[in-house]
Parts: sequence; structure tokens; C-alpha cells
Amino acid sequence: MGTPTAEQIDAMFNAALDAQRLAYAPYSRFPVGAAVLVPDGRIFAAGNVENAAYPEGTCAETGAIAMMAAAGGREIAAVLTVCSGEVLGTCCGGCRQRIREFAEPDTPIYAADPAGVKATFRLDELLPSSFGPDHLRRSGGEGGPR
Amino acid sequence: MGTPTAEQIDAMFNAALDAQRLAYAPYSRFPVGAAVLVPDGRIFAAGNVENAAYPEGTCAETGAIAMMAAAGGREIAAVLTVCSGEVLGTCCGGCRQRIREFAEPDTPIYAADPAGVKATFRLDELLPSSFGPDHLRRSGGEGGPR
Amino acid sequence: MGTPTAEQIDAMFNAALDAQRLAYAPYSRFPVGAAVLVPDGRIFAAGNVENAAYPEGTCAETGAIAMMAAAGGREIAAVLTVCSGEVLGTCCGGCRQRIREFAEPDTPIYAADPAGVKATFRLDELLPSSFGPDHLRRSGGEGGPR
Amino acid sequence: MGTPTAEQIDAMFNAALDAQRLAYAPYSRFPVGAAVLVPDGRIFAAGNVENAAYPEGTCAETGAIAMMAAAGGREIAAVLTVCSGEVLGTCCGGCRQRIREFAEPDTPIYAADPAGVKATFRLDELLPSSFGPDHLRRSGGEGGPR
Repeated sequence: MGTPTAEQIDAMFNAALDAQRLAYAPYSRFPVGAAVLVPDGRIFAAGNVENAAYPEGTCAETGAIAMMAAAGGREIAAVLTVCSGEVLGTCCGGCRQRIREFAEPDTPIYAADPAGVKATFRLDELLPSSFGPDHLRRSGGEGGPR
Repeated sequence: MGTPTAEQIDAMFNAALDAQRLAYAPYSRFPVGAAVLVPDGRIFAAGNVENAAYPEGTCAETGAIAMMAAAGGREIAAVLTVCSGEVLGTCCGGCRQRIREFAEPDTPIYAADPAGVKATFRLDELLPSSFGPDHLRRSGGEGGPR
Repeated sequence: MGTPTAEQIDAMFNAALDAQRLAYAPYSRFPVGAAVLVPDGRIFAAGNVENAAYPEGTCAETGAIAMMAAAGGREIAAVLTVCSGEVLGTCCGGCRQRIREFAEPDTPIYAADPAGVKATFRLDELLPSSFGPDHLRRSGGEGGPR
Repeated sequence: MGTPTAEQIDAMFNAALDAQRLAYAPYSRFPVGAAVLVPDGRIFAAGNVENAAYPEGTCAETGAIAMMAAAGGREIAAVLTVCSGEVLGTCCGGCRQRIREFAEPDTPIYAADPAGVKATFRLDELLPSSFGPDHLRRSGGEGGPR
């Protein structure tokens, strides 16, 4: 699908900002909100959900992707994240990988702070030379998607 | 809150079964659906979302909890999972930990297959002597929830 | 294999305590050390390794199991963890699941603080009614171990 | 530290290839080996360790980093991975994030198959515009490393 419209980006931003406010981040005190846009225009948004056992927590993008998948979505048209702080936050590597499962190299990823979008990336700018389903499918084993 | 009503358990089962059908499980071919009930009666349901990089996938319960948190929920009243297969599936240890962050020792967890609920557990039957927020809070460091 | 000897438990404790001292836990300030004993008597020990993106961190037990596997080990005879703090720490649910992949229901798991072992559990006391390889193998799909 | 010598790269390759052979990958059938070099010349190598609950598995790089940290290492001088298959495999996004915790933008990452090294990247070529400890440290909260 094409580039999101300005209205869609605004809607993603507002959804992600709301999600940031509801994030459960008592350990890092670093709440993040993420919104995922799918080709039919729906937006799914979630915040990070931390855990006392830190590795068992989930990032905001993870939650938004799970919501998308639960609604039958299998294609990400755009992602937008909202973090606070002096340094503009971007998706962690794990989330880039999770986005990549459902996105194309040119899928836009917007990095915002609570004042608005500050930077725009394509997925392949954030996760170049990526690992993905093709590696399993063409590995000579049988581990690929079935 | 008290034990869910039969109607609530039915609603959780139906939501989890729908979520199982929409799970993204091309690698394991083991789709799971999970539903989380919160005290005000709302139900959040999701399926597992696998990834070519297996550790970056998410379980069904993880998705449902992220949806709950994104809606402002911070208390799990009950969880229900649906798996297929000859052996009744229960929550993995990681999901037991994620449930524990928001639940009480006596929170009910229902294990179902597509024909219905087959077993009922309390959280402290599935994750006894658990690790949790108190360990961080009372560790003498400052790593606890703030 | 049988119950570890007192000497083996001592050796596990010392290895886990050393590992706790070397843990990388700048975010939680909750360093953990874990030691895994294999049937031939070798011990593998590691600490937790946190990450700025919290879900990408790894628990101490995870590291010790990875070391075991890297040395060809496929069977856990016992696990011992060391945490500090007022409340005795036990393995998180995720680690119980990772132990379970390589252990038996009666595999002993020792919970220690820096002064010594404070409690002993069997795996099936920490992760009852567990999910495991059998669920995939007998799911009617083809997702099981091959 | 400077670029690894040819001898160091050879030693990393051999260690990673051995680790690939010992990887525990019964679900994906996609064994991976990884080697981490630290500035004093030591090499730590591990394979992936999968789990019936897929998200609870660990990547090869994760294991090697845990070994490094358990030996007191806090600085990665280079990483080398070995995967099989028709398409050259690279580190998943999660591992790029885990490497980034201990590496510099120009840290070399070598991608190999069992026949040898096929591509060389710098970390900032695989994880540009990354999220890291600085984001927490300068977030206005207190969630940074302490």
C-alpha cells in the first residue's frame, strides 16, 4: 500500500500517545506507545507491559502487533512509536524483527515524542540485511512456515 | 473479585476460540487462543504471534495481557486458554509469570481445547512459590516498581 | 540421575555466587546467579544479562542452560540460584519453562541467598501441569521436535 | 579495539561452527552458532537453544553474550555467526539489540555459512539509529542504568 495520509499519521500519533499514557512501565519508568496501521485503515495501539522478571515483559510494538494479528491482520502498512526523553527513541531491535515479519522493506516507521513525529524511517533503514521467514524456508531443513 | 460466572466463562471460551482461529503460528502449527477477564467484565483475547526468529514471537496470553493493559486494565480476574491436540495444553511458564504480574494467587486459569474447558487451576497451582514485584521492592537495591 | 551430593551442591552454590557477583544488572540492580549441574558432574554457571530494551535481557538460568547446551549437555540434573534480598527469590516462570525442556519432574531446584541454600524444590513443584515438547509432538500438526 | 586479526576471525569461525553443531534446534531445524570476541582475545561461543514454548528459546548470540558476561566481559570486540541454508543468515533484530548493549557502532559482525565468512557488517549497519542505555539514562525518569 502507499504512504499513509497525513490524517492517518495523525490518527496513529494520537492512538500511540494514548497508549503511552496507559503503558505499564513501573520498572523502567520509560513508557512507550506504539500504533500499527493496516492496509484497510484500521489502527491498533498498545503500550509496553513490563514484568518483575524483566525478560518476560513486552514492548509496545509487540502488543500492537498482537492486537493486529488477533483482528486477522497480517500486513503492517506503517508503525508509529511515542517515547519521552531528551533523546529520540526508536524501536528496539526485537521490535524491528517483529515488525519485519509482517512488513515490507519500504514500510514507514515514524518515531515520535509527545510533541509529534520527529523522524521517519523505512523498515530496511532500521533493520537492513534482515533475517526472516525466507531463511527458514530455504534452509534445506523443514523449519520454514507451513 | 469472585469466581467468574458460567456466562463469563462461556464468553471467555468463545473469545479464546475465535482468537485461536486467527493465531499466526506458521512455524509451530500450534495455534493458541487466550482470553483475559478483568473485574469490570471486559474480556480481551488474542492468539500467539510467531516469528521467524523464534524467541521474538509472543504467546497468546501475552497478547491478551497487552490488550488489557492498553485498555487501562491492571487486574486479571481470570484467564482461559484454548489449544488443540491430544494432550491438554496449559500456559507456558513465561505466561504464568506474565499473568502473575496482574493476578492473585487464587485467580482462576481455565485450560480448554476446542470442545470446551477441561481443567481449572488457580494461579498458585500453576506457579507456586513465585518470583514477583516484591522481590525487587524488598531487595535492598532500588530496582522495584516505582 | 540421583540426588546431588552435598559436595556437588556446595560446588553449585559457589559457582552461582561467583556468577551473581559478575551479573550485568544495571537496570534492576537485582543480580542473580544460577548454576546447572549435568549428570556427568560438570557445572555451568551464569548471571543475568539485562538490556536497555528490557524484554531482550536474559535471566541467569537462561545463560547457564545456554552454556550447558553449548558444551553438548542435554540433561539437567539440578539447578541452583542465588539472589539477594529480604524475600527468598526463586526462578521466574520463563526459566522454569527453560529448565523443563531439559529436566525431569523430580529434578531438584535449590533456591539460595548469599548465605546458603534456603529452600529445595522439585521442578514439578515449581511448574506443575507444565506445557512441553509432548504438546507439540502430539498436536496433530507437525510442529513437534524432529 | 582495532579490527580482529585474520587468526582471530578464523578462531571465531571455528568456535561458532563447533557451536552450530551442538545447537539445540529440534523445532526450527535451523541450528546457529555464534562467537563473541572480547578485547583481551578470549572467544565465547554458543548455539541456539530452542524451547517447546517458542518465545522462551534463546538465540546463539544470546548464549555467547551470557557466557562473556559470566566471565566478567563487558565489551564486545567482534561477533561472528554461522548459519546454514541457501540465503546467508544474519543476526535477528533481538540479537542486534543484545550486541549493542556491549558494543560500539563500528564493532564488526561477520556472517558466515559452514564454508566460511560471507559478509562483514558494522553494528551500526545492522542496527542504525538504535535504542540503547542513553534513552533510559536521559529520559527524565530514573530508569537508566545505575
